[in-house]
Amino acid sequence: MEKKNLSSSSSTMILHHAVIVTMDSENRLFRNGAVFIDHDRIRAVGQSADILQHFSPLTDQILDLQGQIILPGFVNTHVHTSQQLARGIADDVDLLTWLHDRIWPYESNMTEEDSYISTLLCGIELIHSGVTCFAEAGGQHVTGMARAVELLGLRACLVESIMDSGEGLPASWAIRTTDDCIQSQKELYEKHHKTADGRIRVWFGIRQTMNSTERLLLETRDVARELNTGINMHTAEISYENQFVMNTRNVDHGTVTYLEKLGFLRNNLLSAHTVWVNNSEIGFLSRAGVKVSHCPAAAMRMLGFAPIKEMLDAGICVSLGTDGAPSNNRMSIVDEMYLASLINKGREVFVKGTTDPTALPAETVLGMATVNGAKTLLWDDEIGSLEVGKKADMVVVDAFSWSMIPIHDCIANLVYCLRTENVVSVMCNGKWIMKDKKILNVDERAIISAAKHASQELLKRAGIKIPNRMNVL
Amino acid sequence: MEKKNLSSSSSTMILHHAVIVTMDSENRLFRNGAVFIDHDRIRAVGQSADILQHFSPLTDQILDLQGQIILPGFVNTHVHTSQQLARGIADDVDLLTWLHDRIWPYESNMTEEDSYISTLLCGIELIHSGVTCFAEAGGQHVTGMARAVELLGLRACLVESIMDSGEGLPASWAIRTTDDCIQSQKELYEKHHKTADGRIRVWFGIRQTMNSTERLLLETRDVARELNTGINMHTAEISYENQFVMNTRNVDHGTVTYLEKLGFLRNNLLSAHTVWVNNSEIGFLSRAGVKVSHCPAAAMRMLGFAPIKEMLDAGICVSLGTDGAPSNNRMSIVDEMYLASLINKGREVFVKGTTDPTALPAETVLGMATVNGAKTLLWDDEIGSLEVGKKADMVVVDAFSWSMIPIHDCIANLVYCLRTENVVSVMCNGKWIMKDKKILNVDERAIISAAKHASQELLKRAGIKIPNRMNVL
Repeated sequence: MEKKNLSSSSSTMILHHAVIVTMDSENRLFRNGAVFIDHDRIRAVGQSADILQHFSPLTDQILDLQGQIILPGFVNTHVHTSQQLARGIADDVDLLTWLHDRIWPYESNMTEEDSYISTLLCGIELIHSGVTCFAEAGGQHVTGMARAVELLGLRACLVESIMDSGEGLPASWAIRTTDDCIQSQKELYEKHHKTADGRIRVWFGIRQTMNSTERLLLETRDVARELNTGINMHTAEISYENQFVMNTRNVDHGTVTYLEKLGFLRNNLLSAHTVWVNNSEIGFLSRAGVKVSHCPAAAMRMLGFAPIKEMLDAGICVSLGTDGAPSNNRMSIVDEMYLASLINKGREVFVKGTTDPTALPAETVLGMATVNGAKTLLWDDEIGSLEVGKKADMVVVDAFSWSMIPIHDCIANLVYCLRTENVVSVMCNGKWIMKDKKILNVDERAIISAAKHASQELLKRAGIKIPNRMNVL
Repeated sequence: MEKKNLSSSSSTMILHHAVIVTMDSENRLFRNGAVFIDHDRIRAVGQSADILQHFSPLTDQILDLQGQIILPGFVNTHVHTSQQLARGIADDVDLLTWLHDRIWPYESNMTEEDSYISTLLCGIELIHSGVTCFAEAGGQHVTGMARAVELLGLRACLVESIMDSGEGLPASWAIRTTDDCIQSQKELYEKHHKTADGRIRVWFGIRQTMNSTERLLLETRDVARELNTGINMHTAEISYENQFVMNTRNVDHGTVTYLEKLGFLRNNLLSAHTVWVNNSEIGFLSRAGVKVSHCPAAAMRMLGFAPIKEMLDAGICVSLGTDGAPSNNRMSIVDEMYLASLINKGREVFVKGTTDPTALPAETVLGMATVNGAKTLLWDDEIGSLEVGKKADMVVVDAFSWSMIPIHDCIANLVYCLRTENVVSVMCNGKWIMKDKKILNVDERAIISAAKHASQELLKRAGIKIPNRMNVL
């Protein structure tokens, strides 16, 4: 810090002497660049010398970030923040055990306070991983989540987990009607949309086709359009789902074909996972402008290999998500970037007999985690790249580290070598939310303690027991 | 620290009040356990109260590790330490470009000092990742590597990169005869085997069948047996290799079938990758007691899906490796554990139509990184588990972290949630080599600087140019 007002509440700030990866439409990268931030927005990006010359007189604070790299904040387009307390409750078990014996009992026993603590713990992990904005994938208590997001200083599109039908649901969920589902979400929209200085938006949710009546799908489509917001839905996750849809909804392939038939595929739809889709369905998604959230770890573990290269080739906007802690278990977009590239290179073995090391190159993957993430959340007018007029959401990476050196190919290292421990500072909406590895708005250790306690109590209440893997003495 | 001699050179030490994952044959895990270390060896493992009662009078030092977890040091059974300076020089390019335009020019231009610096940088990354012992996969200057390993305090099986034939080799390599190859390795064995307090062993290397005459294979087999050491070889990496072997060596499948025919498959063979093998070949490997190093990241990126589940089911000892920086790019056994489980769960899609979330459960993967690693390196009489009489090679993990909490399933969290930043201290041969995240035997920042410089010079010398991915200003 070199100048004037040194408090963290400076309303104007120059960050300079850094490598700046803008992710703008011209793919500009400044070797020795600077950003001028005015309140919550970026007012200038360019060469350090130019920015210092023009804006030094106007700024409260000047920060020299020598040797560091500034990137747009990462966007996690699929994360179940309410599941953070369920990390480790369903590892290495089959899908039905996962769902019926572990996740549903856990989720159906959550209180609003549990959702709050779970989102706080998850949010800390997201921030350490360089995430400034996320899409909740469908959780229990949106009001609990919203409190946590507001406090942490993050940006988010929140969604309630919505099911109005389906077999084997916990009793408290099975009584929910289609009208309840729509009404509840309208109320949450009223209460939380555009709150927290505009950092929170409320979307509509569909858990998945097997838990949705046709009426729920149609009303969701129409209400979301009326309120000008997005819809977040798990789509074509497992092959059984497609079989179920073919058997019950009179279509010849799976969920995507069914949604096409319903007129549900629109450009405000965030289609999560989207693993079991054929070429016609890729065409439907592309033509409708549907966005896809690819969750590499969860796909490998639970779902299967999504045809990501084919979707990108078809012009679909594909972004990255972590899914929830019991499906992954790391909530790190940094790791998902690494995985996205590896998995989709490897998947080519099954398409053409050998891996394709050129598939999903680093610059494509970095785009998925930034600009495509912003587009997926219908928020690319304000976030996803470092450009004049956009919100100041950014990540500072320390590249002088054993994990990053040598840097012969900066973008490749950011995607393939970066670890969460290299993310040193994170800014959202013009405010630091992590500085020099310290989370600023909450007490990290206090939240870890609260989360340990709350999760133990919740598992007891839900009657979930995890067998020992070893001879515990 | 509570007691007596507090210097880091204490010859006896009790670590207590920790979760101890022994990985012994009874899979014992102590919730509140202790280890008594006497010089380089473990003299007792058990409940904290018992160990303190019996050994407090005998120890120089007592360390309270409350809330932390002690594990056996991880074993990385396939890492090219000489390639650390090549990180980022060959990302997202096809295999031929990777080999001919990037890796061969890089490796053939290395000096002994380059190998030394590269191994130092790689070693720092290995230690931060909890590795106490590794198998070099075949590098340029064993003397340079050995200097680095001795200094860092690690344990290693070193191997020279050996090729006596093959097309398109750099001029300095193409002149090497079979006799040179064998003689050079005998000299390295004489010079370095069992040096550095016994931490260094020298093995024999075969780069791969396409670069080996039959005579080289047979002499290597015999000399290694005579000297009672191991052989490290890249095996069945790509389908083209099998085709090449079928065309030139008169066998009906690939490298493993050919090696079986030669009588090369023995229990001192470390077969790296081993991706393109059929069921008969899995049988050959199993019956001969060959050990396999599975490198999940490199397999996904470059090679293909190895039938790891099938090999484990056939009783083959499979361990984990990172491969080299230009194939991965993270040299982290912590990440490879995570990947091994994910990839092999996902691979089942292609075997039976859906992923199998129960494949390679956490305890199996943890065994691959510890006990199986030790067996692979023919060193399980001394390392791989925390047992009385074994060498004190261990890792201390801080589990009170946003990345690890909550812990409902300790072993699952160690495999799926652990990140390198949770590895706080590492001991090898009874001495701390990292304590509270600080590497003790070398100056980390000085090595990072030296590595930056050496790698730039090496790329210049080798004429390697990396294209820009963005519009660099």
